[in-house]
Parts: sequence; structure tokens; C-alpha cells
Amino acid sequence: MLQSSEWIWYPGDFEIYHHLLLNTRREERYHQWPAFWRLDDCYHNVKFRKEVQCDTPEEMTVYAHGSGVIWVDGKRYPFEKPINLSTGSHTIEIMVARTDGLPSIFIEGQQSASNSSWEANDYSIDWLPAGCNGLYLKKEDDPAIFAFQYEEILPLSIEQGEEGLLYDYGKETFAALMFENVQATKDIQLFYGESIEEALDTEHSIIIDTIPAASASYHCHPRAFRYLFIKGAEKEQFKLTAKYEYLPLEQKGSFTCSNDLINRIWETAEYTLHLNSREFFLDGIKRDRWVWSGDAYQSYLINNYLYFDPAITKRTIIALRGKDPIVRHINTIIDYSFYWLMSVYDYYETTKDIDFITMIYPRMKSMMEYCISRTDEDGFIRGREGDWVFIDWAEIDKTGAVSAVQMLYAESLKAVWACGELIGAGEKRYLERYEQLKARINECFWDEKRGAYIDSFESGKRNVTRHANIFALLWNLADSKQRESIITNVLLNDEVPQISTPYFKFYELSVMSRIGQLDYVSRQIQDYWGSMMKLDATTFWEEYNPEITGPERLSMYDDRYGKSLCHAWGASPIYVLGRYYLGVYPTSPGYESYVVEPQLGGLEWIKGTVPVNGGTVYVELTQDALEVKSDLAGGVVRINGQDYPLSIDVPFVLSLS
Amino acid sequence: MLQSSEWIWYPGDFEIYHHLLLNTRREERYHQWPAFWRLDDCYHNVKFRKEVQCDTPEEMTVYAHGSGVIWVDGKRYPFEKPINLSTGSHTIEIMVARTDGLPSIFIEGQQSASNSSWEANDYSIDWLPAGCNGLYLKKEDDPAIFAFQYEEILPLSIEQGEEGLLYDYGKETFAALMFENVQATKDIQLFYGESIEEALDTEHSIIIDTIPAASASYHCHPRAFRYLFIKGAEKEQFKLTAKYEYLPLEQKGSFTCSNDLINRIWETAEYTLHLNSREFFLDGIKRDRWVWSGDAYQSYLINNYLYFDPAITKRTIIALRGKDPIVRHINTIIDYSFYWLMSVYDYYETTKDIDFITMIYPRMKSMMEYCISRTDEDGFIRGREGDWVFIDWAEIDKTGAVSAVQMLYAESLKAVWACGELIGAGEKRYLERYEQLKARINECFWDEKRGAYIDSFESGKRNVTRHANIFALLWNLADSKQRESIITNVLLNDEVPQISTPYFKFYELSVMSRIGQLDYVSRQIQDYWGSMMKLDATTFWEEYNPEITGPERLSMYDDRYGKSLCHAWGASPIYVLGRYYLGVYPTSPGYESYVVEPQLGGLEWIKGTVPVNGGTVYVELTQDALEVKSDLAGGVVRINGQDYPLSIDVPFVLSLS
Repeated sequence: MLQSSEWIWYPGDFEIYHHLLLNTRREERYHQWPAFWRLDDCYHNVKFRKEVQCDTPEEMTVYAHGSGVIWVDGKRYPFEKPINLSTGSHTIEIMVARTDGLPSIFIEGQQSASNSSWEANDYSIDWLPAGCNGLYLKKEDDPAIFAFQYEEILPLSIEQGEEGLLYDYGKETFAALMFENVQATKDIQLFYGESIEEALDTEHSIIIDTIPAASASYHCHPRAFRYLFIKGAEKEQFKLTAKYEYLPLEQKGSFTCSNDLINRIWETAEYTLHLNSREFFLDGIKRDRWVWSGDAYQSYLINNYLYFDPAITKRTIIALRGKDPIVRHINTIIDYSFYWLMSVYDYYETTKDIDFITMIYPRMKSMMEYCISRTDEDGFIRGREGDWVFIDWAEIDKTGAVSAVQMLYAESLKAVWACGELIGAGEKRYLERYEQLKARINECFWDEKRGAYIDSFESGKRNVTRHANIFALLWNLADSKQRESIITNVLLNDEVPQISTPYFKFYELSVMSRIGQLDYVSRQIQDYWGSMMKLDATTFWEEYNPEITGPERLSMYDDRYGKSLCHAWGASPIYVLGRYYLGVYPTSPGYESYVVEPQLGGLEWIKGTVPVNGGTVYVELTQDALEVKSDLAGGVVRINGQDYPLSIDVPFVLSLS
Repeated sequence: MLQSSEWIWYPGDFEIYHHLLLNTRREERYHQWPAFWRLDDCYHNVKFRKEVQCDTPEEMTVYAHGSGVIWVDGKRYPFEKPINLSTGSHTIEIMVARTDGLPSIFIEGQQSASNSSWEANDYSIDWLPAGCNGLYLKKEDDPAIFAFQYEEILPLSIEQGEEGLLYDYGKETFAALMFENVQATKDIQLFYGESIEEALDTEHSIIIDTIPAASASYHCHPRAFRYLFIKGAEKEQFKLTAKYEYLPLEQKGSFTCSNDLINRIWETAEYTLHLNSREFFLDGIKRDRWVWSGDAYQSYLINNYLYFDPAITKRTIIALRGKDPIVRHINTIIDYSFYWLMSVYDYYETTKDIDFITMIYPRMKSMMEYCISRTDEDGFIRGREGDWVFIDWAEIDKTGAVSAVQMLYAESLKAVWACGELIGAGEKRYLERYEQLKARINECFWDEKRGAYIDSFESGKRNVTRHANIFALLWNLADSKQRESIITNVLLNDEVPQISTPYFKFYELSVMSRIGQLDYVSRQIQDYWGSMMKLDATTFWEEYNPEITGPERLSMYDDRYGKSLCHAWGASPIYVLGRYYLGVYPTSPGYESYVVEPQLGGLEWIKGTVPVNGGTVYVELTQDALEVKSDLAGGVVRINGQDYPLSIDVPFVLSLS
């Protein structure tokens, strides 16, 4: 019997290639809209090698996407013809070029079967374990086509109006439409809408398509929508099938509680994240359909409490980084380079995946060197020509060096140092730079009078926003006195402008949870996310202002339907509820030790599961009792200031009444 | 009327993309054979911009290979629909992504017409003038397809044998075969041959193809061959058309003399180079069909005396260098990195093309930095893991630092320094390093006893070959005493092994010409190239040993037909005859001043033309008289130790009797 084989490629290139494809697919009416940053590509000329040890003679057949040649013990052979390998050792090298896509090979054989025991080379000196991901196991597969799954979905309603047909699929979805048996003498116009307004506003709906007259059938690209308006059409003119395109992900985390609105918010958040969990973590499925590092950073953390799928996190990290040389910050945003650096160590903390650190560390180091090359004499990084300092959509004073950016930089220095240490390549200068930077931040940005960090010291405005102060607490840049001061003067001070985006609410709710303001968090979830639900949201939005409820709620970027209604960062309640309510988090890498520290946050009861790197923790907390069960060693239950060790598969029960 | 438009792309990416395609096209029986080095690709996501000034309203229509969007004054528009530009200034930016090829745009318009007045950007900071090359002027064109020309060619003979049909096209060619009206019940096997032996030796012929049974028509890829054997076929079974695929090049240089063999050698050399002058200068048209820097370097110099086509030289230089980061030497060969560096300055010397230097200098500098990073404490560069030290196929002692390589390195340092100076970016450290290296070379490699440079000082063998000594004379590394010594002890010493490859004969004949040994050169051309002609060569070979005349003459690399019979470096007589016989060469960049210093080299008479950067010099020399005519200012005729200024279009006539 043949050993199981899978398609292999140059490591990282699968991700980089699909990142290229994905980031050029955004559509808007009659044009496409490629991402406005450098998109790297896979190598188009690569080689693979293995020293194959045959205990018995075997037949090896190589299939390839690309052209090339096989060298066996110095002799050349073509693809797709069986090659006999005698008992003994064979030096095999396979060269493959594919100029318009991802070069890959698939080898049927025993010891020669293709898998990560093969090494790959890009014609530099270094050989690395070949890339593969378990999704391409048949020789008919092509890793250049992403392995999505498909499922037919049916509309909830079809309304025949005078102007045409309106389909409502009941909730936001991502699907490919197939029109068959088309009988139309003129073009049929399609208008997609995340909202009913968008689908019917045919002058402005962002995604449109046309079935050319006299086409018997027409297949649309998969797209985001809930509503579909087909202008001037009647039901009898075609057979329409919608295929939901998705990545199958196992929902390992769960949460329910005494508050039904919060339960529905959790479900909606799950669906929002699932739609955005594809080749990579997207920002939104209609717009931008790109991969943004700051957005993805939150998705990684949410993923830990929902699917615990390290594969998609790894794919996203590799894709975002691309290849050398670095010519701009990731997504052109300074903060987004730092979220990327931080994400690598965060990923390690949950998975203990040292192979990934080994593979990515050189790219992490060159990313950090790029950042360092752009610092000033103060050691601060500041926006240069073409750089975007984002932080948040808020009235932040971004003059010169911005405090929140320096804090991200500091946390990133620690991450690079720590990752280097893990593989024996740690460089102290990163840690030294971190210490200096931390001191400089406190010198330049701490305002004793205001008892808070200011945004910028250069403008003279000494403006205080919540952002830097939240970061300072999250990453321990403030001492205990400063900490208390920030809580009083910023976090619990209504005069400091509120955080208004779901994006930054992620950090705000995290920090509020940490300082024991869980009642505030529970209220925020109900008020902010709850009001989106009242406005009929079936997935959470990119941005939301409770005061705007009319059609203007859909607009953004000067565009009537510019707002993304299915935005990954809207899913943060999952993280907050898992991390701070169920209270499960690792205290050593890969959850080799972890804490379960549940809190009700003003709710009557909560229960749910948290995936812990191969295991699952079940938590149920009422006002009277706590029950925790886990199938992974290393757990400690922490409640009412006491720690209780957790045994595998043995329910821990504590009466609290 | 519309202004003339042309397709534009990111500068350099046309070359890099076609280099990728070309270097993956080599075929051998049932497999392909991609080049064994990193092949870069074009950027797949780029943007273009122009501040368009309209004196009158105009209509602009953008066509693109790729998807994307047009921004006009901050508003978005799709491709292929006319956009009205009002009188005044418009800020236009066009984003284009093409994931499987070269992104490019074509704009119909007046002031908005696409040409090099547009700028291009790869999403780094720098904007550069857009790339274009005058070959893609129609909106139906696609720069991803190289603009070759085609011409039907007919076989000289078709022989019907028992085994099949044998076509002889009379001389080596490069053509695409088209079979039409095919009537065959079983597969038809095609066997190509550069030689008749190869075409008929169906077990070993390198290029083969199969017309599948029951195909009505079949189009073959263009390939190198003279003979074609179609096994088991009869003439009536198909209609065969052969289309010669070529780059049209104007033959500006010419040479005839009293010796008919030399005249035929010149013609054959011209045809040899023409076949190899395609997207880039190839090594050989059958094998490898790749671009090799050391081979190309000679083609650039021959080109100067034949087509004077700067475009192909520039294309080849850009393609060979590829993109950053550099991970290996060009073609993996240390010497080939240096030929590349030298070629840039050489190109400037003939063209004075400062725009090209501005564009390429950053890549030249990073190439040199890569080389410098691989030097040892002596300042010498030596082969490290994966490096190939080529120099020549000869018994060179390549232990440790090799003298010929250091000489190439020295000449390259000078080239980088000089190119930097041209654009105001000269770095003295390159010149200093050159001076130190020159001194170290003389310290370590000059052998006073042998009166020659040795190959290696580390092996203790103190082996002397001609190679380094030739370089030392060509690039003035030897002082006048050493010079005399080298001439006596090496160049005119039969005990030092002869140069045996056409490749290195280029340098040998150059240096022999310079030291006044033109009679030797004339003899060499007749003996070495002349004997290939006697063996029926219609183009010159990769390698040639006059002692082997049987079928073994065709073999190389353990392969019966492994030798390339049409190899660019075989064309060097054109360079030697133009440079040293007609004697025309620049004395300041771009031929702003030049010398005409003709020599008979033992021939009764010589005449011909040499292109001089836009002009042409006609030279006719007999034993009795010299006539020179030029349409370019700046010429000086040098003969019998005297200089005579040359006037434009006025024949200079001198009696020598």
C-alpha cells in the first residue's frame, strides 16, 4: 500500500500566493480595487530534495503543478512516469517552475511519498522543511486553488416586485450564485446588498454583476451579501442556486449565560468571525476583503477562545509579513507592523509551536530592524513619508512621536527578544532597547498633572485619550501609582472621550475587565453590541454609532454603503467572555499551565467551554456554585483569592453560598 | 487626433518577467529544465500616476492587463470606459494588479496618453519613470507576450526514408512548426536535430515532440534545429509550415577582407549571434536557452560592432540582476556577478545613457555589497558554499582565492565607483578597495620566478595559466615590466596550455590584438573558426576541439548531443575584427570622441563599417591606402603613429605606399 502523500511547496509560499490573490479581489461596481501596498508572490522556481531510504524496492511517481525535472542519483527523469527505486538509499532532487502560480509537487510512493519530510529550497543556500497543510491530499488537487467547502443555501424569501426580484437570504452570507437555464433576451442586472437598502439602491449598491443576454448559464464569483436584487427579472427566467463558500472550523469555545441578549450577541459574534475566517482572517467580507494586521491581531485572540485553529493564525501571520526586502510598514501602518511582531509571540504563548518560531524568526528580525531603522534620536518611531499612524478612529493628537505607537513598539521589542531566546538566537540589544524606550516613554509622555499619558509631547497640546493609557495598563508600562491614577483620571473619567469603535473596544473591555470593571463590560456588550442587534444586524459592523439609526448608519468613507456590516473585529465579545468571564488563560506557553478564574460580571450564571491547546475546559458559575472540568493537565482554579489545582477529567465543584 | 500611446509597466519588470519565462523553457526529451538559480518575478501590484495638464478638454480611456481602478482627482473610475478630462490640471493615479503576469496599462488620450511621462510605483516610497520599450504600441498588444517577428522558412530538402521523413532546413534555425490537415491514426513522433545525427538518433535526440493521434492540427513551441525527423510518417499525412521566430535587428556593422574564409566566418558569426539575440542575449538557442552573465558580457561587446542595439543589452543587464535581496551570485557563478558589474559601465561607455545608470545604480551597489560581504581578511573573494568559480573550462588551480576572480573583482570595483561618480553618488571606499586589492593581487599572485601571475597561492602549486595573465593585461593590473614578462613567459610561450574554448578566446584574441599579435589572431580565426566551418557548421559551437571530428564532436556533459551548436560566444570574431582590424573604439563615453586605428593583421585588404552610437564609420584599408568616412563628429584616425582628425561626412584618404 502506498504511504499517504500530500502536495508540498516552498514553506510560506502557499500563504504568500493566496494573500496575493485575495488582496486583489476586492470589487466595487465596475472596477476592482487591489490593496494599496506591496503584495509579494511565491517563488516561481523552487526545488525539493530528500535522501530516500528504501527497505524494499518501490515505485515513485511525481506529479507537479509546473514544469521541471526529477534527479534520482544524478539521472534525470520526467514527471508522471513511474520511477523504480531499488532497495537502498537514493538522492532525489526535483526542480519545479510554475511561472503563473504556486509550484508544487505530489509524490506517490512509500518512503518517497511527498510530505514535510522533504525539504524545499528557493535557490538560496538554506533548505527548509517543505510546506504542506493537510488540505491537499489527492493528486487531482491544486494548492493554487484554496480548499474551501461549499453548501447550498436557500433564500428566506423571494419577492416579486414591479422593478424586479428581491431575494433575502435571512442573514449575511458569502456565496457564489449560479444561474442556469437562463432565458433572457437582454442583460440581467444583479445588485447585492449587505442591507436591503443597498440591494434596492441600484445606483449605489457596491457589488453588482450582469448576466449577458443570451447566456444559458452564468456563474458569479463568491461574494458577501444578505439581499440580492435582480432588476427587471422574473422568477421563471432562470434557475438560481447559491453556494455558501466557507472554511470548515470546529467551534470549540462556547458561552451561555442568564442574559439572552448576551447569548445572541455571542452567537452573532461567532458567525461574524466565521465568515471572516477564510484563507486568512479578513477585516470584512465585503469590504475591504483584505488582510489587515491590526484587525487580524484581534482575530487571533478571539480564535483562541472559539476555534483554537492555529492553522489560520499561522497562515495569516505568514501572509501579512510577505518577503524581504521590507519597503513599507505592514498595510502601510506603523502600528500594524507592531501588532504583527506581537502576534508571533502571542501565537507561541498559546501553541508552544517552536517550529513556527524557527521558521518565522528571521522575518521577525528583519521586520524589527526595519522599524529600528526608522527611529529618531529619542529612540521613538514616528511617521515618515508614506507611513500611516492609525491607532483608532478618534481625536488622537498624532503630532510627531505618538505615545500609543511607542507602547506598541516597546511590547514588540519584548516579543522579538523573547522569540529569539526561544530558539537560542536572543539578542540582548532588543531587551536593552525595550528598557530604554520604556523609560523614555515615561519621561516624555507621562503627564503628572493630568495623571495620565498624553498622546504627543511635541504639539504642546498635552491631549489625553484613553488609547495610550489602555495600552500602558495592558502591557505594564505604568507603575502601580500611575496605574491607579490612570484608572481614576482616564478609564473611569467620563470627561475623557469614550472609545467609539468596536476595534478599540477590544482593548478597552480587556483593560476594564482586568481592573475589575466587569459590570461596565457586561453593560457595554449589551448596549453597544445589543443595539446593533436591534438594528437587525446578523453580523457585527465595522463601526457603529448608537445615535445614528437611519440609512446613514450604512455609510462610511463618503460612500452610502461604504460600511462593512460583517467585520471581524466586531466579534470581540467572544474573547472578553472567554478570557475574563469564563476566565481561562495560559500561564505558560501552550497551556502547559493555565488558570481558570471565572467571574459573573453581574450576570446570574455563566457557562461554557474554552479550548486549551488540544484540551477543553468546561466552566459553569452561578452565584451559588462553581463547576470546572478539564481534560488537560496543568490547570488551576482561582476564585475568591484562592487557588485550587485541577485534576484531569475530574469535575472541580465548589459551593459559593 | 490622439497622441501616440504605448503600453507601460513598472520599470525593469518587463525584463524580469520575460527572464522568468525564458529561463523555465529549456526542454529535454520528456522533461523541462528550469534554470538552477533564483528567478525573480515582476511586481504583481503596481500603480501609475501623472499630473495631466489639459489645454483643451480631452477623453481618456484606460486599458489594462490586470484588474484595478483609476483615480481622477480623488474619484474612482473603471477601465475601458472613456473619462472626460476638463481643461486644467488633473491628478491621475491608476492601480493595476495582475496575479499571473506583468501588469500594464495603455491609455488613449492626448496629454493623458500612456508613455514614459507617467511614473510607476511598486508601493515603496519611490516613483520612477514608467517602463516602456516601443514594441507595444497597439491596445491589442500584451507586453507579457514578447514581440517577436515571424517568417515562413522552407526546408532545403525533404527525404522520404523507410523509417520516416527527414527535413533539412539548410542551416541552424529557431522556428515553430505547425502541422495542419493531419491525417494520422497513431501518434506522430518528431525528432529535432542541430545535427543530422541527432535528428536520426531517435533514442537520444534532445528535443522531441509528439502529435497525438487524431489531432487535426498541432502547433509546436518554437525550437532550435536544422534537421527534423518525423518517424513513420509520409508527406501526405499533413501540411507542415515552419515559422522562423526572430528579433528584427539592423546589421549596422560589416566586415569583408581579402580572405574569403574570414568573410564566411564573419557571416556565420553574425547569424550565430542573431539567433541568440532574442528577449535577451542567450548562451545557446537549444541549450541552455538561458541567460548567463559571462556569456552575455561578450554578446554586449559583439553587439557594439554589429547591431549597436542598446535595447537588448539593457534588457539583458536588467534581467540578469533581478531583484533584491541577493541570495546567490548571478547564475551562481562568482565571476558572473563581476561581469555583470563591469557590463554596466561598459554599456555607459558606448551609449552615455545616464538614465540607465540612474535606474540601475542602486542594484549595482547592492550587488557589490553582496560581493564585499563575502570577502576574507585579505580582501579577496573566494568560493563559499554553493558558489561556482568558473573562469573557463581549463586546468586552472582553483584552490582558495583565485587570481582571475580577484582581477574581475578589481575591475568591478572600479566600475561601481565610476558609475556612482556619474550620478553624483560615487563612494571613494570602492576606489580605495580597488587600490588595496590591486596591491594585494600583486603581492600574493605575482610570481617573480615565473614572470607571471599564478592561479592560486594557497595550494602551493604555483600553477600558471593564460587566464589571469590575460586579464592582468586587459585591465592594467600589471606594470610595464610585468607586462613584458607576461607576453614573453605566458602569451608567447607554447608551454603554457593553449586557450581551447571559444569563450576564453574572446579575451585571448583581444589581448593578442593589443600586444600587436594580429597575425596570430588572423591565423586563429582561420584555424579555429575555419575548421568548424569545414565540419559544416552553419553557426558556431559552444566548444570545439579540432582533434575530434567524428560523432563525438557533438557530445558534451556526458550527453551524445549535449553540445550547443549555436552558441553566442562563438561570434567573437565580429568583435575582434571590428575593434582591432577596423580599429574603431570610443575614447570618451557615447563615442563623443573615438579613434579609428585600422590594421591589416596580415590580410591584403579589409573594409567594413562600425556603428558608433548613432553614427557609422566606414573603413577601407589596403596595403597602399586607407579610406575612412564617418557621419559622427569626434573621430580621430590613428595610423603609423600619427593622429588625423576626421571631419563629418568627408572621406579621409591616406596613401600608404
